[in-house]
Order: sequence, then structure tokens, then C-alpha cells
Amino acid sequence: MKLEILAGALRDYLGTTRKHTIKNIVGIFDEKGTNPSFGEDAAIIDNGEYALLLAADGIWDKLMRVDPEWSGYCSVLVNVHDIAAMGGRPLGMVDVFSSNSDEITQRVLKGMKAGIDKFGVPIVGGHVHPDTPYAALDVAILGIAKKDTVIYSSTAKPGDDVVLAIDMDGRVHPSCDLNWDTTFLKDASIVRQQVGSMVELAERKMLTAGKDVSNPGIIGTLGMLLEVSGVGADVDMSAMPKPESLEWEHWLKMYPGMGFIVTCKPENTEQVLDIYRNHKLNATKVGKIVSAPRLDLVKGKERATVFDFTKHEITGLGPARGRWCNNH
Amino acid sequence: MKLEILAGALRDYLGTTRKHTIKNIVGIFDEKGTNPSFGEDAAIIDNGEYALLLAADGIWDKLMRVDPEWSGYCSVLVNVHDIAAMGGRPLGMVDVFSSNSDEITQRVLKGMKAGIDKFGVPIVGGHVHPDTPYAALDVAILGIAKKDTVIYSSTAKPGDDVVLAIDMDGRVHPSCDLNWDTTFLKDASIVRQQVGSMVELAERKMLTAGKDVSNPGIIGTLGMLLEVSGVGADVDMSAMPKPESLEWEHWLKMYPGMGFIVTCKPENTEQVLDIYRNHKLNATKVGKIVSAPRLDLVKGKERATVFDFTKHEITGLGPARGRWCNNH
Repeated sequence: MKLEILAGALRDYLGTTRKHTIKNIVGIFDEKGTNPSFGEDAAIIDNGEYALLLAADGIWDKLMRVDPEWSGYCSVLVNVHDIAAMGGRPLGMVDVFSSNSDEITQRVLKGMKAGIDKFGVPIVGGHVHPDTPYAALDVAILGIAKKDTVIYSSTAKPGDDVVLAIDMDGRVHPSCDLNWDTTFLKDASIVRQQVGSMVELAERKMLTAGKDVSNPGIIGTLGMLLEVSGVGADVDMSAMPKPESLEWEHWLKMYPGMGFIVTCKPENTEQVLDIYRNHKLNATKVGKIVSAPRLDLVKGKERATVFDFTKHEITGLGPARGRWCNNH
Repeated sequence: MKLEILAGALRDYLGTTRKHTIKNIVGIFDEKGTNPSFGEDAAIIDNGEYALLLAADGIWDKLMRVDPEWSGYCSVLVNVHDIAAMGGRPLGMVDVFSSNSDEITQRVLKGMKAGIDKFGVPIVGGHVHPDTPYAALDVAILGIAKKDTVIYSSTAKPGDDVVLAIDMDGRVHPSCDLNWDTTFLKDASIVRQQVGSMVELAERKMLTAGKDVSNPGIIGTLGMLLEVSGVGADVDMSAMPKPESLEWEHWLKMYPGMGFIVTCKPENTEQVLDIYRNHKLNATKVGKIVSAPRLDLVKGKERATVFDFTKHEITGLGPARGRWCNNH
């Protein structure tokens, strides 16, 4: 592995570069003190002692065309992760499903059903377009957390450790080379235990920031966290876990079935690792937050910059603005 | 107007018949006591003294292809109506937006922004696919209501009056013949007053059931309410309002910018009409709930059946099952 080449490949990776559009869209909504939670995995709505967490995720049409059943499953998976990333408990989901054939409808629903059974979060309502010229599936999820325990993306501080928690016991999904599937074949009780790690960490206030590892992969997701936190990180590639059978570039671009990239005070790192391990996740300290606004891969004396936030943008959101939406 | 012909046209109207798919989809999710709120405008999640209301709506691709700006606007409008229909207050929305061109993106966002400004409900987060081969917009909304004040679709009883509240001051939308637009050109303060009628009616417990008039139009929406309530109705066509310039069939198929079809005890009807009128809506008693499971149009001695629920299905959901989702 040559770090410079790997860093360049990750920087250019579609899963990261396509996030650019977010900035233009947020610019339109972020006015008049509506104070949205852009940059967070879920929006936060103040509700007394509790924070209501509202997130929406759509399935990439590329995935939908390749495997409708896996798309249906993933629509549940990604939404459950969005709530877990914030340290919340999921309450229910609603979906908007557009389909162009009965066969696709049945396959998508079969996948969604498998996801609901796996994660134990119900679909409580939704909307169907049975006659669209394309197939698309969007799901929104509502979760809840005690207000003072919510985990944000935007609150990492220089000096914090970076911890990666991920399930290494998985497979490259047969119909999607970029999915590291660890949940579909695994017992629901284990998967739910893994998801629950974030609630325990939140309620014990062990983390300074965190995100679920999503489409941009481990490094891209960390990059988003750094960008909204207004900090940088050194990632120690000698500590980074990787399945033996996969190349580095492939692995670091993957969407894992269960993965969280979080930060914590160094004095809490051992406890954080223990809590993840007790929840059946592999957990490793993989880096350190620094004040310089760049994400570097480091191995011994070798060093390569993936993102220099003075030059590159991921979401383009910059350090987080207000995080609360007080509408009620 | 020949009632028999009108009844047949409404029965066959796409806006109603396409709802059939709901039944098949609900069948897959409605297991193991997850107890979803299908058939209601929003799903209800028990949260102590309050009910959290979660709804999702997608924009028909036909509308998106004709007018992206109006689609963006309507994505807000329809979601705000879903929460109003339940007597709730909206808290925030999230969107999933898939776009195939920058121009469409900008036009959709302009419309969403107009909707947000009009109704005063923020978009608090969401997800963007900037590179799909189609343009699609799905929005989910979170609302809240005191648990004992929620308005359901499924609770109309024989003997109740049927009241239609609608804004007659409108226009056929220039790019969509089936949209009776009453909000786009109207002052936000009036529009918000109109939406607020449902919260006042809910909190004063004036209604026995209600829905917002949506794609299936006035009669189709009433049909859905009757079907899930397990009752029928006689609709008095001599009382039904209609803009002079429109034909009956056209009018009754339209999606109004602001319309609610509700039921109430006869002793409350005058007060219900007054409350709507104080909120700047035209309100009329247009019918009576009956125990026979059919929706009849009646005018003097003429009578024609639009839906006989022993033979026809709209959603196919039948009388409502459980309405609560207790997950927390």
C-alpha cells in the first residue's frame, strides 16, 4: 500500500465527491433561523427533556436496479444507523415507494420485511406510487434520545482519540461489491446488540462525536465528521483493521453493515473499546484529532493527505452552525 | 349533471383506483403486532401524553415532469396537510431528493422554499441523490398532538354529519389541471389560519373523524374515510359547493390547496361550520353517515352509488385495525 495513491483514490471516490451538492441545497433552506441540523445523521427537534431525531435516506438507484430485495433491506439498515449514530432509539419508519413493476414491488417489500425483522423497527405508514416509470425507495425514521445525551458529528476536539467500531465478520455482498454485509446472515439478537452500543455510549456520555460509517466509507465518513467539527485527524493505518482478502482501496470505499467512527477523550478510550466489544463489535483506536484542518493517513514515517479542508470540500458545510431546531 | 354518470366517472378515477396497491403492501408489514396506522394520514407513535405523528408523501412523477417548482411547493403542502388532518402541529420535515439536472434541482428547491415560507414549517434535514436518471421528491413530516385529541379517519359513526371545509377562492393551477390552487398566491397568514382550523377542532374535540382532501378528490377521500370507518354516507349534491366555471366531474377530481372532509355529531355541526369560517374556509354540511357500507350521491329523488364497499375497494384496508404504535 502506497499511502499517497490510496489517499488520492479516496479523495476522488464518488461516495465522497457526490456529497458536494448538499451545500447548495442547505444554502436554500438555512435562513430565517430555521436552524436545521444539516451535517448530522438525523435532524434534532427539541421536545422538552427529549430530542426527537428525524432522518431520511433514499436508496441509490444504482443499487435498486441491481438488487431490489437488497435495496429494500438496506433502506431499513441505513435509517436504523442514522438514529444509532446520534445515540437514539428508533421508534418507527415511514416509506415512500415508487415502483414500475409488480415483481420489483414484491422483491423490495421482501427485503424491507427482512430488515424490519432483523432490526425490530416497524414501518408505521407510508405512501405508494405503483405506476412510476422508475423504481425508487425512500424511508424516513423517527427516533428519540435524552436531550443531553445526543451524539453529534460536529463536536470532535483536538486531542480526542478516533475509534472505529466495525463488524469484521462479514462478506462482500454478492450483488454489490461496495457493501460489506455483516447483518443479513447474522442473528437478529447480535445485530441489535451491536446497534445498541451507541445508545449505551451516549447515555454514559463516553463520546465527544460520532457518525455511522456510510456510503463514503470509513475515511470519507471521518472526513465529514472532521469537516463539520472544524478539525483534522491523523489516521494510523497500522492500527486500521481490514479483512485479509480485500485490498485497502476496496475496503476503505465500502459501506459496512455495522460501523461507527467516533471520537472520545483519551481517558475514556479503553472504556469505549470495551463497551463496543461487549456489544459484539470489533473496536480499535485508529487515530487522533488534531487542530490542523486536514485528514492525513499515517504509517510509520509515511504520511499522505486525503482531505485538506482549506482546499477540498466534502459536504462543504464547514464547521457546524446551530444544531437545534426549536419549533415547539 | 346526471348523478349515475358522475358516480361512475368518480369510481373509475385514477386517483382512487391506484390506491388499491396499499392493501398488498400493508399485508406484508402488518404482522407480529407492529400495529401500524395504515389508512390514517399520518402514523401515530405513542409518546406519553403526546402522540407523535409521522407521515411521508411523494410527488407524483407526472407532476414532477410537468412543473418541478410546483412539485417542490406541493411536497410541503401535502405533508403539512397530513399533520393538519390529524389535528396535529407540524414540527419539521426531512426530504429525499433525487435529481437528474441542475436546472430541475434549482426549480424544485425554489418551490420547496416557497412552501416552507408559506406554511412556516422548516426542512430540518434530508438526503440528496444528485445523479439519478430521474427526478423524484419525497418528504416526511413529524408532527405532534395531545394524544386524546387526535383526529382519525376510521372513527366516523352512523348519524354523524359530513362537513366539507374548503377554500373556494382559487384557480385551476396553470400547469396542473387537477390542482385547485388556493394557497400559492395567498397571504401566508391566511393559509396558516386555514391549516390551524384542524388543531382548534381537534383540541375542542368537535370532530368524530376527518381527512384532508387529497389526490382522490372530495368524494374519493370521503370514500377512504368511510371504508376504514366501516360505514357509508349519503352525499347531498345540492349542498355541495363548486366553482361556477368548472364542471362537476372536473371539480370532484381535483386536489384542492386547502380542503378537509370531516364528520361530527349533528349537535356540533353549527359550531364546526363556525370554526372553519372563522379560519377563513368555506364550510358546508354536505352529507350524513349511514350504516350501509356505500357512498351515494343524492339530489332530490335522484340517487347513484359511487362505491359499494361490499363490491368495491379503495384502499382495500377495510374497517380500521389498531391505530396505535406503542414502541417506546
